[in-house]
Amino acid sequence: MTATKVTAQLADWIVGLEASAIPAEVREEGVRTFVNWVGCAVGGARHETADCALAAVEPFSGPRKATVLGRGEKLDALHAALLNGITSHVLDYDDTHLKTIIHPAGPVASALMALAEIRPLSGRDLLTALIVGVEVECRIGNAVYPDHYDRGWHITGTAGVFGAAAAVGRAIGLDAQKMRWALGLAATQSAGLREMFGTMTKSFHPGRAAQNGAMSAFLAEAGYDSSEQAIEAPRGFAHVLSDKQDFSEILDGLGSRWEAALNSYKPFACGIVIHPTIDGCQQIRAEIGDRVKQIETVQLTTHPLVLELTGKRTPKTGLEGKFSVYHSAACALLHGDGAPTAFTDEVVNLAEIVALRDRVKATADPACHEASVTIEVTFKDGTTLKKHVECAIGSRERPLSNEQLESKFMNQAKLVIGEAQSRSLLDLAWTIEEIGQAAAVAHASVPEAKLRNAAV
Amino acid sequence: MTATKVTAQLADWIVGLEASAIPAEVREEGVRTFVNWVGCAVGGARHETADCALAAVEPFSGPRKATVLGRGEKLDALHAALLNGITSHVLDYDDTHLKTIIHPAGPVASALMALAEIRPLSGRDLLTALIVGVEVECRIGNAVYPDHYDRGWHITGTAGVFGAAAAVGRAIGLDAQKMRWALGLAATQSAGLREMFGTMTKSFHPGRAAQNGAMSAFLAEAGYDSSEQAIEAPRGFAHVLSDKQDFSEILDGLGSRWEAALNSYKPFACGIVIHPTIDGCQQIRAEIGDRVKQIETVQLTTHPLVLELTGKRTPKTGLEGKFSVYHSAACALLHGDGAPTAFTDEVVNLAEIVALRDRVKATADPACHEASVTIEVTFKDGTTLKKHVECAIGSRERPLSNEQLESKFMNQAKLVIGEAQSRSLLDLAWTIEEIGQAAAVAHASVPEAKLRNAAV
Repeated sequence: MTATKVTAQLADWIVGLEASAIPAEVREEGVRTFVNWVGCAVGGARHETADCALAAVEPFSGPRKATVLGRGEKLDALHAALLNGITSHVLDYDDTHLKTIIHPAGPVASALMALAEIRPLSGRDLLTALIVGVEVECRIGNAVYPDHYDRGWHITGTAGVFGAAAAVGRAIGLDAQKMRWALGLAATQSAGLREMFGTMTKSFHPGRAAQNGAMSAFLAEAGYDSSEQAIEAPRGFAHVLSDKQDFSEILDGLGSRWEAALNSYKPFACGIVIHPTIDGCQQIRAEIGDRVKQIETVQLTTHPLVLELTGKRTPKTGLEGKFSVYHSAACALLHGDGAPTAFTDEVVNLAEIVALRDRVKATADPACHEASVTIEVTFKDGTTLKKHVECAIGSRERPLSNEQLESKFMNQAKLVIGEAQSRSLLDLAWTIEEIGQAAAVAHASVPEAKLRNAAV
Repeated sequence: MTATKVTAQLADWIVGLEASAIPAEVREEGVRTFVNWVGCAVGGARHETADCALAAVEPFSGPRKATVLGRGEKLDALHAALLNGITSHVLDYDDTHLKTIIHPAGPVASALMALAEIRPLSGRDLLTALIVGVEVECRIGNAVYPDHYDRGWHITGTAGVFGAAAAVGRAIGLDAQKMRWALGLAATQSAGLREMFGTMTKSFHPGRAAQNGAMSAFLAEAGYDSSEQAIEAPRGFAHVLSDKQDFSEILDGLGSRWEAALNSYKPFACGIVIHPTIDGCQQIRAEIGDRVKQIETVQLTTHPLVLELTGKRTPKTGLEGKFSVYHSAACALLHGDGAPTAFTDEVVNLAEIVALRDRVKATADPACHEASVTIEVTFKDGTTLKKHVECAIGSRERPLSNEQLESKFMNQAKLVIGEAQSRSLLDLAWTIEEIGQAAAVAHASVPEAKLRNAAV
C-alpha cells in the first residue's frame, strides 16, 4: 500500500460514509460511549479544574449559546467544547480504547455537543459523527502507538484533535477537499504532553482537542487551506510525532473493522493501568472483611507501564492520587473504593491510607499483560494471601454491562445535579438516536432545568 | 549544570527582571522589532488568509475590544491575537532570529497588543514584555535547534507559544509559580508542522502561538495548574519534541547575553533562506539592466536548506512562490522585485517568469553557509557572469538600517491604509516607549481612524 494518499482516503471515507452502513452493534457501542460521556461530563462539572478554566475563559466568551454540562453557565460553542472536554476527563473516569489508551469520547463528543447548540443536529446525526470521529482518532492512534505514546505524547490530545475535526467536519457537511484541510489543521495542532499527568492540565488536553478540532473544521469550511497530506507527509503528523507509522492501521478495513466498537468504560476513576489492582484489592476486601486492618505489606506484580505511569509514591492531591498505584491499592483495600470519592484531596491524605500506601510495593514484570495483576498480601501474623486478576473489570473481556454503566452514571451525576434529574438525563441520553435536536441532552443537564420543556 | 530546574529558573527571571536592567541597545532592537511587526501586521491585513480566518472566528468572538491591525474589525483579545499573528506572518516578510529561523515578533507582539486593549499597558511595559518574550522563545529555540526543526517542527509556532506566555504572563503580573504553570500550559500546546509551508496554515502557527500563549497566562492567573518542569522533564517539551536538549542555552547568561538583540528583519517577502539569492539577482540586474532578457540559464550554489525548504519547482500560487527559490530568482532578475508584489498569484504565473524559472538550476553545497550564495548566469551568447553573495542584506552582518525599515514599513502599509496614515502609524510606533496606553498603536492602524484622537 502506498502511503501517498492516507489523508485523502481517510477524508473521502469520513465525508462519504452512509450512516445506514454502520452496523447495529457499532451504533449500540456508540450509544454506550455517548451515555458514559454525558455522565462523566456532568460528574466532573463542579471540579475545581472546571472552575479555574471557566474563570479564565469567561471574559473571552462569544455568544453564549452552548452549555457547560451539569452547570448553569453557557459559553460560545468553542469554549463550551473546551470545558466539556475538561470536565468529562478530569475525574479520569471516562472511556478507553485499550489498544492505544486513548480516551475517545472527550475530544469528539464535547465538540459535537457544542456544535449541536449552534447548528441543527439530530441525535442520530450526532451519533453517526461521534462514531466516525472515534473511529478516526483511534485508527490514527493505532498507526503511531506505542512509539508515539512512549515518547511522551498524551495520545488523547494528539489523536483526539483529528477525531473532533472529522466529527465536526462531517456534521457540518464539509466536502472531501475541505475535510482534507480540516485534518491538516488538526494535524498541525496535535499536542499534549504526558508530563502534565497529575495536574489540571491533563484534562485540558481532551478539552483543547475538542475545541481545536472543531475550529479546524470551521476554518476549513471558511476556505482556510492546509496541507492535504498532513498525516503521511515526511514533515507531517506521523513522521514528526512518532518513530512508528503504520498507515494500514488507518486505511485497512475502513467501514468493516470498527475500532469504535472496541471502546471500554472505566469502572474506576483513575489511570486505566491501575484498574486490575483496584479490582483485585476490592476482591480481597470482599473476601477478608475487617482483616484488611491486619495487613502488614502488599506486593503487586504488574505490567511495567503501571509503574511508569502511576508510580507516584507520595501523592498530595486527589489528582496525583489518580497516578499512584500505591494510594489506589490502599484505598481499595481499606475503603473498597475506586470511584471519584477515592481520589479527593482529603482521602489521599488520610492517615490510615497513607500508612498502608507506604507499605505497598510494586514490581514490574514484562510478562504481566496490561489488564492483569498479581497481589500478595502479608498479614501481621505472617500469613499471606495471593490474588491474581487475569482481566480487570472494564476490560474488553469483562465489559461493563448497561446496568453497570447506569450505576456509574448515577453515582457521579447525582452528586452534581441530584438523583431525579440524573435519572431523567440518563434516560434521555440512552435515546440519543431518536432525539430531534441533540442539544436537548445538554439542556437537560443544566441543574434544575425543566426537563420536560427542554427535551425537544 | 543540572537540568532539574530549567522551567523554574526561567520563570524566576521572567517575573523578576527589572525593566531598567535591559541594556539600551537591546531596547533599541526591541523598538525595531516592534516597528517591523506593526508594518507587517498592517501589510498582511487584507490577505485572503486573514479574510478566511476572520470568517471562521467571527461567530465565536467574545467582547470586541481588540483590533485586527490594518482592518476595521474588532474581536475579543484572544481571537485578535490569532488574527494579528496570522497577518504579520502571512507575507513571510517579518523578522528572523537567524540562529533558529524563529520569526520572533509574531507570536509575542500579537499577544501583547491584544492584551493592551483589554488591560492597561503602557508602551514601555509592552516593550519590556516583548523583549522578554522574544528572549524566552529564542532561548528555548536555541536549546533544541537544529534537531527540533529538522524533525519537521515549525519552530516559530513551537517556541513562539512560550514567548507569548512569558510576555503576557509578565505583563499581567503573574508570580513565579503561576509563571511556571503558564510555561507548562504553553509547553503542552507547543505545535506546528513544517508540512504546512506554502499553505495558509503556515501563518496560522504564529497566530495560534500568540493566542495559546496568552491563554496559558490567563489560565495560570486563574489558578489552573500545570507541571512546573515542563521544559526539561523526561516527558516534557525538549525531550518529546527534540533529540537535542541544551538547557544551558536557556539559562546561561540570562540578562547579560541577549538573543532579543539578534533579531533581523526580512528585506524580502519569502523564506529567509532565499534572501541571498534575491539579493544577488538584484545586484546582477542592477549591473546588466536589459540584458536580463538574454539570460539562458541560471545556476545557483546554495546551502542545502535552501532546496529542502524552498525547492518548489512549479509554484502555482503566491504562497507557494515564497517557497520556490526558482521563482524568486527569476522574479528578482526580471522585475528586480522581492517585496510582497513579487509573490502574488498573478506574478507567480507570468509567462516570462515561468519560462526563466524553469531554466534556473540549484545545487546544494554543504560548504556554503546560510547567508551566502553563488550565482552563475549564462547568456544566450554563451558568455557568463558570476556573483557571490557572502552575507545577504538583512543578515546580522548587513542589517536593515532604520531608514530601510521605514521604507519596508511604508511600502507594505500604504497599500492597506494609505500613505498618510502609514506615516503617522510609523511615527507612533517608533515612540512606543513613550506611549501611555500601548493600545493607541492598534487604534491608529484602523483605516481612516482619526489618528490625533486615537493616539492617546
